[in-house]
Amino acid sequence: MTTPRGFLACGIHAGIKTEGPDLALLVSECPAAAAGVFTTNVVQGHHIKLCRARLATRRAQAVVINSGNANACTGRRGLEDAEQTARIAGQALGIDEQLVLVCSTGVIGVPLPMDKIEAGIRSAAGKLSVQGGQDAARAILTTDRMEKTCAFDGIADGVNVRIGGMAKGAGMIEPHLATMLAFLTTDAAVVPEALQSCLKHAVAESFNRIIVDGDQSCNDTVLFLANGLAGNRPLDRDNRDWPDFEAAVTAAARELALKIVEDGEGATKLVTVAVKGALNDWDAEKAARTVARSLLVKTSWYGEDPNWGRVLDALGYSGAALNPDLVDISYDNVPAVRAGCAVPSTGREDLRAVLKKRTFCITIDLHLGNGTSTIYSSDCSEEYVRVNSHYTT
Amino acid sequence: MTTPRGFLACGIHAGIKTEGPDLALLVSECPAAAAGVFTTNVVQGHHIKLCRARLATRRAQAVVINSGNANACTGRRGLEDAEQTARIAGQALGIDEQLVLVCSTGVIGVPLPMDKIEAGIRSAAGKLSVQGGQDAARAILTTDRMEKTCAFDGIADGVNVRIGGMAKGAGMIEPHLATMLAFLTTDAAVVPEALQSCLKHAVAESFNRIIVDGDQSCNDTVLFLANGLAGNRPLDRDNRDWPDFEAAVTAAARELALKIVEDGEGATKLVTVAVKGALNDWDAEKAARTVARSLLVKTSWYGEDPNWGRVLDALGYSGAALNPDLVDISYDNVPAVRAGCAVPSTGREDLRAVLKKRTFCITIDLHLGNGTSTIYSSDCSEEYVRVNSHYTT
Repeated sequence: MTTPRGFLACGIHAGIKTEGPDLALLVSECPAAAAGVFTTNVVQGHHIKLCRARLATRRAQAVVINSGNANACTGRRGLEDAEQTARIAGQALGIDEQLVLVCSTGVIGVPLPMDKIEAGIRSAAGKLSVQGGQDAARAILTTDRMEKTCAFDGIADGVNVRIGGMAKGAGMIEPHLATMLAFLTTDAAVVPEALQSCLKHAVAESFNRIIVDGDQSCNDTVLFLANGLAGNRPLDRDNRDWPDFEAAVTAAARELALKIVEDGEGATKLVTVAVKGALNDWDAEKAARTVARSLLVKTSWYGEDPNWGRVLDALGYSGAALNPDLVDISYDNVPAVRAGCAVPSTGREDLRAVLKKRTFCITIDLHLGNGTSTIYSSDCSEEYVRVNSHYTT
Repeated sequence: MTTPRGFLACGIHAGIKTEGPDLALLVSECPAAAAGVFTTNVVQGHHIKLCRARLATRRAQAVVINSGNANACTGRRGLEDAEQTARIAGQALGIDEQLVLVCSTGVIGVPLPMDKIEAGIRSAAGKLSVQGGQDAARAILTTDRMEKTCAFDGIADGVNVRIGGMAKGAGMIEPHLATMLAFLTTDAAVVPEALQSCLKHAVAESFNRIIVDGDQSCNDTVLFLANGLAGNRPLDRDNRDWPDFEAAVTAAARELALKIVEDGEGATKLVTVAVKGALNDWDAEKAARTVARSLLVKTSWYGEDPNWGRVLDALGYSGAALNPDLVDISYDNVPAVRAGCAVPSTGREDLRAVLKKRTFCITIDLHLGNGTSTIYSSDCSEEYVRVNSHYTT
């Protein structure tokens, strides 16, 4: 996050959670071009309304992020609290409050403790540093077990530009057009409209391709700030360096997205579900999502059980065009199913050897057309249930 | 199952599973009117093709049911094995093999052990009895913890008619137009077309309204045999006793369906999700299904946590028309949410008292129209994961 020039951050304990850091600040030394992508859930956290309104200018300089409280379903005072949070941060940082964005994550339905937020922001403003990125990454977590950060390098206009990022998210993960909370920074100068287009592309190829539990959060937010301190001429979509820049941003977003799946609540495995040969990409996506979301498939992964029957069953109700007698399924390079039936030469132990790995890929060929799709998923363990039956309102 | 006159049954251990009964016979003393409803999964167990074909005559006299093996995804020999099963049973029972239906449930992708099936049927044919209903109900179970049977009485044409039933199913449960395996019998005489229409109605109001894990099985089958031994004139839809008969059949189906949810893999609670005030019934159903399917909602039930934020979140991505600021949510008669916000006068302990019950109802009013829908669901416990990560191919 603070790898790109001119970004400072910190994370502190403001008392929103009973223990551990719960408030992060991310600040650019100068106003930055800003882009955002948000949940498509009809129920939305109040910070999303604030971010959407402020991003109309495509500029921002700071983000306040709290964990422990989603500021969602909190009635009229929810938006007022988000605005007040930005106001306090603007004053504490000595910058225009309109350049402050706000993000919240945590329990739904409980109003923000504004006294703690205010004291926390004032304390945090004095602790900003280039070294504070990791503290910030820790302060935005809820049920996550590990911080999720990334850093990438690129060249734009002959100068070195850097991209940094952090994310949180372990449950309520099946994003559509956004995910939990993720933040990307770059010191590249980027034309604001191009920045938004770049972020949309990156999100489509990363956060929108992961599933932990199939629940889509009402607070999903991805923000991207570009402060231009690398000194390049502003990048636009017709620049020859644009494809590389967009690829680097997408790689950064994908790294964070995969870290979310790896850190999925109770997850012990990261599984790639790759569908090819579908009638079209839309069908491929339906098929891949249905397999990746199936509780029976996910629990069989946890049990390291090569239960391809459950994969076929899920394909059958996915809504994708399907001829069961044509389907091939492989676990990594080991063929399990050919033309809808078990491959006789493949032993159960050959398949189990793949399933015992922490990361593997299930490739499904429907043999109907050229549609492809890839979804990243986690397994489902008893620990998932334990976490979610006791993580309380 | 054997409460109606003229039905015999038995359940034995044929060796398809390593232990416990795994083969059931259900036989009517005379040919019966027969109706069936099947899974809409594109991947289908081979017995379904056999049943569909034979039900064209709307007559049947016997059903062979095996557990432990789904005879699905077993290639060309799958249908041959189902036909051979019916042939063996026809010979053993001394009836026309075309009047024998077959149902299989269990592991997908493994061919039926036909030698065991044959020996099992021959042994079972000698053990049929009126008292054998409970043994049959036990022999069709897989991960179920208890037998699921029901018996109802009614009057048709001045004579007493009886309805019996049994079902199996604990996982892979989100039926669409049918569920796992369920069998209904009646000694009423019923016009075959009316019997099919009656079954469709009953299934729509029962098996199609339950969710355990959101996975739709490829073997879902409901069969209904009416042997006419009560002696009434055949019931048709214009008979004045028809509404009562249909209501009794629906009640029988609903009792079996609720027993499936209660016996859901790892389930500790039976929860009714009732949506009203939706724009239309279709939206209400989308909303109710999404809440009832949400893993986060189901785990919070298990934790006895009144986490209505997760209910609102699920409504938000259900696809139903929604204004979050209008939504009311109650747990039994305790109001939790009014107009999208927590009800201040309701304490967390008031809500917890409801959640601590084994059975409760969540009522959601969207305040947008007159659409209603009710779905029956179970909670999700560590035990669900344990069962499904170790129930092996």
